[in-house]
Amino acid sequence: MEAREVLRQFKEGAISMEEAEHYFRREPFEEMECAKLDTHREIRSGFPEVIYCSGKADEHLLQIVKKLYEKNGEVLGTRASRRQYELVREEIPGIQYDPISRILKAKKPGGVKTGKIAVCTAGTADIPVAEEAAQTAEYFGSRVERIFDVGVSGIHRLFSRLEAIQDANCVVAVAGMEGALASVLGGLVDKPVIAVPTSVGYGANFQGLSALLTMVNSCANGIAVVNIDNGYGAGYIATQINRLAVRGNG
Amino acid sequence: MEAREVLRQFKEGAISMEEAEHYFRREPFEEMECAKLDTHREIRSGFPEVIYCSGKADEHLLQIVKKLYEKNGEVLGTRASRRQYELVREEIPGIQYDPISRILKAKKPGGVKTGKIAVCTAGTADIPVAEEAAQTAEYFGSRVERIFDVGVSGIHRLFSRLEAIQDANCVVAVAGMEGALASVLGGLVDKPVIAVPTSVGYGANFQGLSALLTMVNSCANGIAVVNIDNGYGAGYIATQINRLAVRGNG
Amino acid sequence: MEAREVLRQFKEGAISMEEAEHYFRREPFEEMECAKLDTHREIRSGFPEVIYCSGKADEHLLQIVKKLYEKNGEVLGTRASRRQYELVREEIPGIQYDPISRILKAKKPGGVKTGKIAVCTAGTADIPVAEEAAQTAEYFGSRVERIFDVGVSGIHRLFSRLEAIQDANCVVAVAGMEGALASVLGGLVDKPVIAVPTSVGYGANFQGLSALLTMVNSCANGIAVVNIDNGYGAGYIATQINRLAVRGNG
Amino acid sequence: MEAREVLRQFKEGAISMEEAEHYFRREPFEEMECAKLDTHREIRSGFPEVIYCSGKADEHLLQIVKKLYEKNGEVLGTRASRRQYELVREEIPGIQYDPISRILKAKKPGGVKTGKIAVCTAGTADIPVAEEAAQTAEYFGSRVERIFDVGVSGIHRLFSRLEAIQDANCVVAVAGMEGALASVLGGLVDKPVIAVPTSVGYGANFQGLSALLTMVNSCANGIAVVNIDNGYGAGYIATQINRLAVRGNG
Amino acid sequence: MEAREVLRQFKEGAISMEEAEHYFRREPFEEMECAKLDTHREIRSGFPEVIYCSGKADEHLLQIVKKLYEKNGEVLGTRASRRQYELVREEIPGIQYDPISRILKAKKPGGVKTGKIAVCTAGTADIPVAEEAAQTAEYFGSRVERIFDVGVSGIHRLFSRLEAIQDANCVVAVAGMEGALASVLGGLVDKPVIAVPTSVGYGANFQGLSALLTMVNSCANGIAVVNIDNGYGAGYIATQINRLAVRGNG
Amino acid sequence: MEAREVLRQFKEGAISMEEAEHYFRREPFEEMECAKLDTHREIRSGFPEVIYCSGKADEHLLQIVKKLYEKNGEVLGTRASRRQYELVREEIPGIQYDPISRILKAKKPGGVKTGKIAVCTAGTADIPVAEEAAQTAEYFGSRVERIFDVGVSGIHRLFSRLEAIQDANCVVAVAGMEGALASVLGGLVDKPVIAVPTSVGYGANFQGLSALLTMVNSCANGIAVVNIDNGYGAGYIATQINRLAVRGNG
Amino acid sequence: MEAREVLRQFKEGAISMEEAEHYFRREPFEEMECAKLDTHREIRSGFPEVIYCSGKADEHLLQIVKKLYEKNGEVLGTRASRRQYELVREEIPGIQYDPISRILKAKKPGGVKTGKIAVCTAGTADIPVAEEAAQTAEYFGSRVERIFDVGVSGIHRLFSRLEAIQDANCVVAVAGMEGALASVLGGLVDKPVIAVPTSVGYGANFQGLSALLTMVNSCANGIAVVNIDNGYGAGYIATQINRLAVRGNG
Amino acid sequence: MEAREVLRQFKEGAISMEEAEHYFRREPFEEMECAKLDTHREIRSGFPEVIYCSGKADEHLLQIVKKLYEKNGEVLGTRASRRQYELVREEIPGIQYDPISRILKAKKPGGVKTGKIAVCTAGTADIPVAEEAAQTAEYFGSRVERIFDVGVSGIHRLFSRLEAIQDANCVVAVAGMEGALASVLGGLVDKPVIAVPTSVGYGANFQGLSALLTMVNSCANGIAVVNIDNGYGAGYIATQINRLAVRGNG
Repeated sequence: MEAREVLRQFKEGAISMEEAEHYFRREPFEEMECAKLDTHREIRSGFPEVIYCSGKADEHLLQIVKKLYEKNGEVLGTRASRRQYELVREEIPGIQYDPISRILKAKKPGGVKTGKIAVCTAGTADIPVAEEAAQTAEYFGSRVERIFDVGVSGIHRLFSRLEAIQDANCVVAVAGMEGALASVLGGLVDKPVIAVPTSVGYGANFQGLSALLTMVNSCANGIAVVNIDNGYGAGYIATQINRLAVRGNG
Repeated sequence: MEAREVLRQFKEGAISMEEAEHYFRREPFEEMECAKLDTHREIRSGFPEVIYCSGKADEHLLQIVKKLYEKNGEVLGTRASRRQYELVREEIPGIQYDPISRILKAKKPGGVKTGKIAVCTAGTADIPVAEEAAQTAEYFGSRVERIFDVGVSGIHRLFSRLEAIQDANCVVAVAGMEGALASVLGGLVDKPVIAVPTSVGYGANFQGLSALLTMVNSCANGIAVVNIDNGYGAGYIATQINRLAVRGNG
Repeated sequence: MEAREVLRQFKEGAISMEEAEHYFRREPFEEMECAKLDTHREIRSGFPEVIYCSGKADEHLLQIVKKLYEKNGEVLGTRASRRQYELVREEIPGIQYDPISRILKAKKPGGVKTGKIAVCTAGTADIPVAEEAAQTAEYFGSRVERIFDVGVSGIHRLFSRLEAIQDANCVVAVAGMEGALASVLGGLVDKPVIAVPTSVGYGANFQGLSALLTMVNSCANGIAVVNIDNGYGAGYIATQINRLAVRGNG
Repeated sequence: MEAREVLRQFKEGAISMEEAEHYFRREPFEEMECAKLDTHREIRSGFPEVIYCSGKADEHLLQIVKKLYEKNGEVLGTRASRRQYELVREEIPGIQYDPISRILKAKKPGGVKTGKIAVCTAGTADIPVAEEAAQTAEYFGSRVERIFDVGVSGIHRLFSRLEAIQDANCVVAVAGMEGALASVLGGLVDKPVIAVPTSVGYGANFQGLSALLTMVNSCANGIAVVNIDNGYGAGYIATQINRLAVRGNG
Repeated sequence: MEAREVLRQFKEGAISMEEAEHYFRREPFEEMECAKLDTHREIRSGFPEVIYCSGKADEHLLQIVKKLYEKNGEVLGTRASRRQYELVREEIPGIQYDPISRILKAKKPGGVKTGKIAVCTAGTADIPVAEEAAQTAEYFGSRVERIFDVGVSGIHRLFSRLEAIQDANCVVAVAGMEGALASVLGGLVDKPVIAVPTSVGYGANFQGLSALLTMVNSCANGIAVVNIDNGYGAGYIATQINRLAVRGNG
Repeated sequence: MEAREVLRQFKEGAISMEEAEHYFRREPFEEMECAKLDTHREIRSGFPEVIYCSGKADEHLLQIVKKLYEKNGEVLGTRASRRQYELVREEIPGIQYDPISRILKAKKPGGVKTGKIAVCTAGTADIPVAEEAAQTAEYFGSRVERIFDVGVSGIHRLFSRLEAIQDANCVVAVAGMEGALASVLGGLVDKPVIAVPTSVGYGANFQGLSALLTMVNSCANGIAVVNIDNGYGAGYIATQINRLAVRGNG
Repeated sequence: MEAREVLRQFKEGAISMEEAEHYFRREPFEEMECAKLDTHREIRSGFPEVIYCSGKADEHLLQIVKKLYEKNGEVLGTRASRRQYELVREEIPGIQYDPISRILKAKKPGGVKTGKIAVCTAGTADIPVAEEAAQTAEYFGSRVERIFDVGVSGIHRLFSRLEAIQDANCVVAVAGMEGALASVLGGLVDKPVIAVPTSVGYGANFQGLSALLTMVNSCANGIAVVNIDNGYGAGYIATQINRLAVRGNG
Repeated sequence: MEAREVLRQFKEGAISMEEAEHYFRREPFEEMECAKLDTHREIRSGFPEVIYCSGKADEHLLQIVKKLYEKNGEVLGTRASRRQYELVREEIPGIQYDPISRILKAKKPGGVKTGKIAVCTAGTADIPVAEEAAQTAEYFGSRVERIFDVGVSGIHRLFSRLEAIQDANCVVAVAGMEGALASVLGGLVDKPVIAVPTSVGYGANFQGLSALLTMVNSCANGIAVVNIDNGYGAGYIATQINRLAVRGNG
């Protein structure tokens, strides 16, 4: 509803002063002691609020998970520890936990997955980040194909799966060490590549800085980068892109 | 054509050994003295090869521009100096040059622009990078809306243009100094935000590192980042996303 | 007392050579084995000496806390562990500990809080640093309003509290990840903003460096920055500013 | 005017729909081709918009300077080159230029300077940044005392001027190389110290990073930091603090 | 000659005290005013001393070039400017200069090139560094095959030349931007890859740091790295390896 | 077998379509759930695939070790913990573990070691990295001489072993702290020096960055560098060089 | 003994070939399995070899401590853990351990301390590093005066002890956080100041980098810097300077 | 004169109140417009104030040079350009300029040089920094021996001059690139080594950072470091050490 329309309806009495004031004060959130839950986020962005669990105090985490679960009938948490899962499970018995991706999830039944996102990793050690990306995208309704361990030290493994990758609406490239996978993919596909540097490696990888710089400086086109180890962020933006392709917006 | 199909046709004599060998040797490029022009790139990626002019020797630049122009009837160069433009103009009289974006361009008439990309800047000094992004996207067939000087030091300027931004298939956020524009946009739109850090600023901006880190660490979702001052890269991936929306791929 | 005055009184015999010498040797501190307690600090700066507890050996911490408590009848310690609290409590039974801010405190009754400081955070995870700032300012006599979880990923939450923020004499902006909150606040208020980068985040936040650079490079005016996670420092300087406003000094 | 009041007056017909809509759309800026002049900034922040001249295209600079000068009858530009000054002077003959601070200024006669800010430098080479701070503060109505060349390599020079420094409402500490001046001042005064690292020095000063880190990590209290060489920012926040002291706000 | 042998001969009178002392004082260099020419270097390392021209004072450069040319009948200089070349040419008329690699060279006729080194570049802009490597290796007697512009953004160009690369005794991989070429080569050949990061690129390439980190962190095996833009160093060590292969040392 | 030969044999019926297709699809790896074992790596590179154990999940490690052991009758793992060793030992009883180098190894009897690699360390604390290099090279068939604790703080220790070092086909220089050993060796030998920076040291060594920069910037020739603490990588490339010398390839 | 003298005596038969050869082969160290003990170090440098205990394997540490203790009748170890102390004590019952400095020491009775070194710290938390410096210097025969907790946040504490500091032959300045103490001392004394940055602090101190840069960039003269937390190194070089003053060398 | 003595004399009337006050206000400097000349510095530190010329405005430089020259009859300036020299020469005709070290100097005749400092460089390109160190030390009365071009790539050149180096009271080690010279010297002499990293080199030397880190992390003892290219600082502290040796202070 546009501002002009709100004002018109208010003048005509169709909405009360309280309603009009509420609109203009723009407070679509729920005040809690420790947080302001962004309850209108789904309306604004098309995605419900997701909980970053790591580092949250137990009581805060419980409050927020319960509130969101009550509101939406489903909830997604990232970077959860097993201990946090066990804590939450006492309140929401059906909640699920994946120790690889560290995702905590209660999902309403019956959702359909559409489009396609290809999630690729350079090595086995990048799988936890890739799974965070893949499961996030699936939670938000994207179909995902996993293509793991196709890094450039044995590049024929990548070529053998190239058709499956070229077929996707968006490619997520997850790689640590020198992160060259993103550049190679950027040169081989015609869809956006979302590159996720990981902290996998040692020595002068500087906890992922090396892979981040590689990906940001790529000589190939069609690559954009998210934070180190940020599988969630990659799954989110890949879903935005996948939705655009699925729904069309010509 | 699949490998199996090539082999079948070869065995049946439909294609010669030379044709089959050529397929498998995969050489779709034109060998020059200083370069290997990637002439099949448009087939592979949907985009023709583009020339990064900065630092190229004069004779190399001329050779490559002419070869691509002859092949495609149009050509795009980025980071060109005025001197390079004057050099090329002697060979391709109709070529155009924009001193703000430093783009060198000869474009076939009659192209249609579709979809919509919003290119936003935080300040006036970010316009050169934004124009590189905008003109790149336009060259590749995207419709672009420019929304400049809407940085967070006067955030009401951004809100006044919010509808125009939310309407696009993809938002390009160009900002230097602390680069906070990308985070604010990420919280306000439901489409992918491609963030371009710029080297605008001074002191501890470290030639754009500050804005790059800001954008990579954004607390908002739906943001991915390209290299510092890389307007071209942002225009490219934004066009990929815009095309997906325009064409649909459900 | 001015130097000239000391000399005059000394010549006239009003003060002894020992007193004069003491004045000029400037030794207003108490020598302990491990420290030189700055007992004149309150006179010089308007604030008593505060104890940074982290990393202090047990016996040193105990000695210093007791000495200051005996002298002033109250004491403030920052970055205290629960174990340190339990240790000190055996000597000063009434001492209080807040596990969120890690502040250790014994406060004389009856102090009045004046003026107003607004302490804002971007997210829930920034609350420990914000509480260190808020409780430090309160200890030193400032009235504090807490406005938490108003980061830029849902900027309407900030606007709903804007009046309360604009009302303060000084705003403390506490944010990790990309730290954009400080810039947004700088553009919306007409009072000094003391920005506190936090180490909250992961990946390329480099333990708070990203937020620090963001805040130092802010395109908005009226922002100055303290060290990463330095809530105490922010509460201190905010109190200095608040006192100037309360007392006036035209 | 509060939102509720706007709505009430609108319902009663005291203000038109256009006026109400305008209020809520919050567009207090003037659209130019290259910029959105923040014409309500003075109302919002108490300071008019100031022009950062460095790197602006000639036509852009001229447009913006003239527009602001027409609107306000005075104008302030920072980081201006002599060439830019000569350009602007053709349009605004009375405009003044200081080659040390690189400030470009046309000021309405008759302003009064109130309160007091002490601007200190460690060495002679820090004077350009200090002058930018001092002249900015003076333009905004603060009285300024300059205390230059009092760095720690000859600390008695600082002590000889200590009373003049302790007398101010706010101290600006400008220092390059190792930047220790800020820490020493922080230990000697009871007012806020705004520290400005400069790029003065060589070798491992890394263009001011060394001084920035020194100031951010200061062991003394009451210090907050602005960007490297950012005299303008220091003069701005020092004026905010000085105004609070002058006006009082108990 | 071993120490024991020297001593034996000295005792027997076969060599004089001066000769023995000279041996033990180990002074196989020629003292000049500005330098100590390492005239025994060829004996010790198999390579004559080479002159790094950049930044040398004119008179120093001339002295050193002439001395080495007189001694060896040939001379090699790297990073020479055209002006330096013109200066030296007045003394050594037959000396040659290549403006791409900036190599200054006078070579005795009749040398034979043996073995094979493959020098590869990612792009056209990396050619100057590659030529420094190639011409250094050729000067020292290696046969070199140049394979330029085979970067990962069009990886089929690399595959088309793979046999020529796999055939070499050592591969030099020269790449800027993200430097992924080295990793891809490391996975495809069974010979040592000497990786040379270049400063080609912009933004977050940090003058070659990005490519350096990529190459040091490579997930592929058989890669070792030299300094940014250090074509000379790569040509040198590649020649050492090539010689081992040519001469054998089983 | 060349592509042309495959095609000819296929046309003549000597190989089936399946065989030909397999050749061109290039899939010489074994698909596992968590990995794609690069089973043709030995053919391509002359070295079997080696397992980087650190951080691998237990079940993944076990699967991969067993698969490779079954295939090759021997297996090499690096960076293994004692716990991982004990786990693997239950499946492969004869497997061996060295707690210094953290190498896990089952080796077929009867291999011959040829050529010579000298592995040198600056100090005692560098021995674990040096042993990883030495044992890797031995596993791959190189003869290794260990020369430990010959750093530059007592350089006569190095000279006493110089003949043994000069005798090798390749020198591995392992050093932490300031890493000067590599430069000194580079000036004294005529064979390639593979430099391995280690994270040994403290303070401004920044976990090996200092040694890495030293080695990359060496003023001596014939030095190339691998990642910090990457003994395995040094042993690998040293073996490639040693093999070239042993086999000859003139 | 000079080389010429050795040769002369050898020719005359005064020394045998073995003796002469030994001289020239320069092997004044004792070969152990894990180390080459530099037994002539005291002759060469005036200081016996000292053991850096941190990270040494138990058996290596024991071997080395015992060997040196047997040779010299005394021994010094730095960075020793309590567990290492207890281990060594079983072999050398009289050995002493200081948990603050982590120094392990067995000292022959009767040594005299001469000259004077002043060891100053900025705060209490810098004492462990300062004690390592002080006890190292004392072990090597210097008289030491400790002046702790005299940092710039309360600079009068420093002035009260200035005479004691100015009296020393060398001043060791130990400081973390911003490390300004070294600059202040450099401006107040006429003797060399050895500055030791410590890792004390938090946030943007980057584990001592901030203090290191401060000290290296000092605007005061007469300051040279050792590694972060390197109390041992400071005590060593301060002793060299103190000895020069005590012994004289005109 | 001690504080107690001043007070006693004042009480007895031997000195006036003005004299006493002056003592305690400690103002031994001369106020100029742009600077506070530290005229008592020679008394306090044993060295007169020296002028860092680089970046000083012409009129400021002239004023300061003349004032110091008038006061002391001699003057020393560092980092002077030829243009600055020509400017100053018009006022002080006898002043001398050395274009290598960029030192500007007028020296009273008849000074004696005592003791000995050895100034060593790794290469020819390090000579300008070494000359700044050497000429500074000579200006302050030290005897200097220059030993240039003795870097580790040909370490026998260093050994041939070892006696001359070991003979000095203090060694200044000037080196760029990887800076290993300081470590090697530290292991060979028993006197303090003042290490000066230079910005000589390229690529990953990061303008001297590499050499700085090498020298700070040296495994050898007796080394302390000054800023990159800071020859002046090294000459200063080396002179302090040399004076201690010459004068003795037992």
